[in-house]
Amino acid sequence: MRFEVLNRAEKCSARTGLLETYHGIVKTPVFMPVGTQATVKTMTSEELEQIGAKIILSNTYHLYLRPGHKLIEEAGGLHKFMNWKGSILTDSGGYQVFSLGELREIKEEGVTFRSHIDGSLHFISPEMSIEIQNSIGADIIMAFDECIPYPATYEYAKNSVERTTRWAERCKKHHKRNDQALFGIVQGGLYRDLREKSAKDLVAMDFEGYAVGGLSVGEPKECMYEVLDYVVPLLPEEKPRYLMGVGSPDSIFEGIQRGIDMFDCVLPTRIARHGTVFTARGKLVVRNATYARDFSPLDPECDCYVCKNYTRAYIRHLLNAGEILGLRLTTYHNLYFLLRLVEKIREAIEGDYFLDLKEEFFSKYGYR
Amino acid sequence: MRFEVLNRAEKCSARTGLLETYHGIVKTPVFMPVGTQATVKTMTSEELEQIGAKIILSNTYHLYLRPGHKLIEEAGGLHKFMNWKGSILTDSGGYQVFSLGELREIKEEGVTFRSHIDGSLHFISPEMSIEIQNSIGADIIMAFDECIPYPATYEYAKNSVERTTRWAERCKKHHKRNDQALFGIVQGGLYRDLREKSAKDLVAMDFEGYAVGGLSVGEPKECMYEVLDYVVPLLPEEKPRYLMGVGSPDSIFEGIQRGIDMFDCVLPTRIARHGTVFTARGKLVVRNATYARDFSPLDPECDCYVCKNYTRAYIRHLLNAGEILGLRLTTYHNLYFLLRLVEKIREAIEGDYFLDLKEEFFSKYGYR
Ligand SMILES: [Zn+2]
Ligand SMILES: [Zn+2]
Repeated sequence: MRFEVLNRAEKCSARTGLLETYHGIVKTPVFMPVGTQATVKTMTSEELEQIGAKIILSNTYHLYLRPGHKLIEEAGGLHKFMNWKGSILTDSGGYQVFSLGELREIKEEGVTFRSHIDGSLHFISPEMSIEIQNSIGADIIMAFDECIPYPATYEYAKNSVERTTRWAERCKKHHKRNDQALFGIVQGGLYRDLREKSAKDLVAMDFEGYAVGGLSVGEPKECMYEVLDYVVPLLPEEKPRYLMGVGSPDSIFEGIQRGIDMFDCVLPTRIARHGTVFTARGKLVVRNATYARDFSPLDPECDCYVCKNYTRAYIRHLLNAGEILGLRLTTYHNLYFLLRLVEKIREAIEGDYFLDLKEEFFSKYGYR
Repeated sequence: MRFEVLNRAEKCSARTGLLETYHGIVKTPVFMPVGTQATVKTMTSEELEQIGAKIILSNTYHLYLRPGHKLIEEAGGLHKFMNWKGSILTDSGGYQVFSLGELREIKEEGVTFRSHIDGSLHFISPEMSIEIQNSIGADIIMAFDECIPYPATYEYAKNSVERTTRWAERCKKHHKRNDQALFGIVQGGLYRDLREKSAKDLVAMDFEGYAVGGLSVGEPKECMYEVLDYVVPLLPEEKPRYLMGVGSPDSIFEGIQRGIDMFDCVLPTRIARHGTVFTARGKLVVRNATYARDFSPLDPECDCYVCKNYTRAYIRHLLNAGEILGLRLTTYHNLYFLLRLVEKIREAIEGDYFLDLKEEFFSKYGYR
């Protein structure tokens, strides 16, 4: 992997860059659609290309349980398995082990948990997480970490983050594939000294990129932005910075303003399945009866395939009737909306009007 | 609507033709994918075009209940509502009133039934069926009929078919839109004299096309073919003949051999959602664990988008994990398979080798 910063905003830390993997060039800042089970829900890989996605995220925990990383390796890796020609990032499985797995036991060696699918018992160590991610074959892989719950006591957070740092070291040692970039994950909850210690320790280990994890887990958004305010400056300028699990339009702006390059989130696909769509003027619950006779597009300012061809009334009918096409159309539009937004942000950084775009977007969208 | 017979097979009643509506030219024989609720399940209208569909069927009963025919009329008709540029045929609602509606009461005037969605009470008469179909605005509409259950006594069948004939007359009188062709439906169960009477009475009324209804409702396939053997010769040569609710590959061959031009069936889409796909060598339950590590396409002889891009192992994983993309891929392939098969049959009739193609297909597919 190669990364290069291209433009820097004058009045804030926003920046554009190029991230090159064996599967192509990704312009940053970038939003990565989430393909949990080797599929971005409802979308074909062809459609992901159409909407301009260059990199997607997939979940190690889910793929390990089903269909199994060995099967994916047999298929020739995840790219071939799911027929995706662009880049892929896999998380370490840590987040899901702690949030989905039951009866977990955390030891220095690793974590024991039960599958959320069939209750079977599993053990994942930092070394195993790397081996699984090696089998899956993503372009960017993540060090195995514990995502500290919110709220957490200082004592708990301190022990956890120190262990995560030791795990990161083990991951780095165990990782052998040169075609996969390994990122470290800064943890530490909302405790500034723990976050700073985590960042410094990881930077000393020299990862190819750095993620800020353990945010967007229920804390107020201001707390998240505060963490970014003091963590990002500790990360090396020349390496990509990834804010995990964040994808609402406002947080994308705030993250980019603070120097973040990469985002992922299930938000656009998840709200789509509940009948909610992004528009330039804020979210719209197209499932509502209000839209039964509204023959305008989801977002009149959007130029995506869905907005050019289908109406709110039709999509509302599909959702109301339980038709899969309804979920397809809302998902497609939401992903397009977010990818297009990040593209506009890149252009704004290049043209040095990022803060103006932010203000304009926020006021039209209805933030604040 | 305009219909023209182009080629006739030498050794059987198979024929090709052109059916022209205000929404384009349809080559016959033709298979019409079913879009019950204003959507062919899982498919966009763009994908329907891609697989070569020229005409689809939609269900009056379902559209009347949800979203309502008046809403569709406001949208500018079903073509605009669902963004389908090709031709559309709507059934009369009769079949669903009798099979899905509860607590039905059949009188000379019409049928009272309860909605399968919310239990609300509704009444549909032949005149109302036509009005609803006029609002929906399909290119071809059907006379309101009772689809006689199987088995049925002679007494029941006789009363029912005579009423259906009287209903057909009322439909014809009530239909005013010149841009919609009205077809009559031959009923009569498995009773030859009733079928013949029905056919003759309807032909005397001079409909623009004729359907054979009340078949594929549980009777042995041989009985269905026997009915076609004596009914089709009574129908006018120069008008299209439509066998309702039939879509298995063998029955399509048998129907075409007996002079049928049009088919519709939920089979390809329904079995797709249960993880079963057509292949040149017979049906395959790709959901089965057998295919977990099978990295070949659904049907190695198929050249559809799915078979060119995805493997059985991947599709099996998607179905197993409950992912919508799995249903999309099996549905797309099955519809493509059937449309392509009917296309090959048209070519065979043109080249006068229909019976040879049938024999070859049957032996490879595993029939008999
Ligand atoms: Zn759109
Ligand atoms: Zn295929």
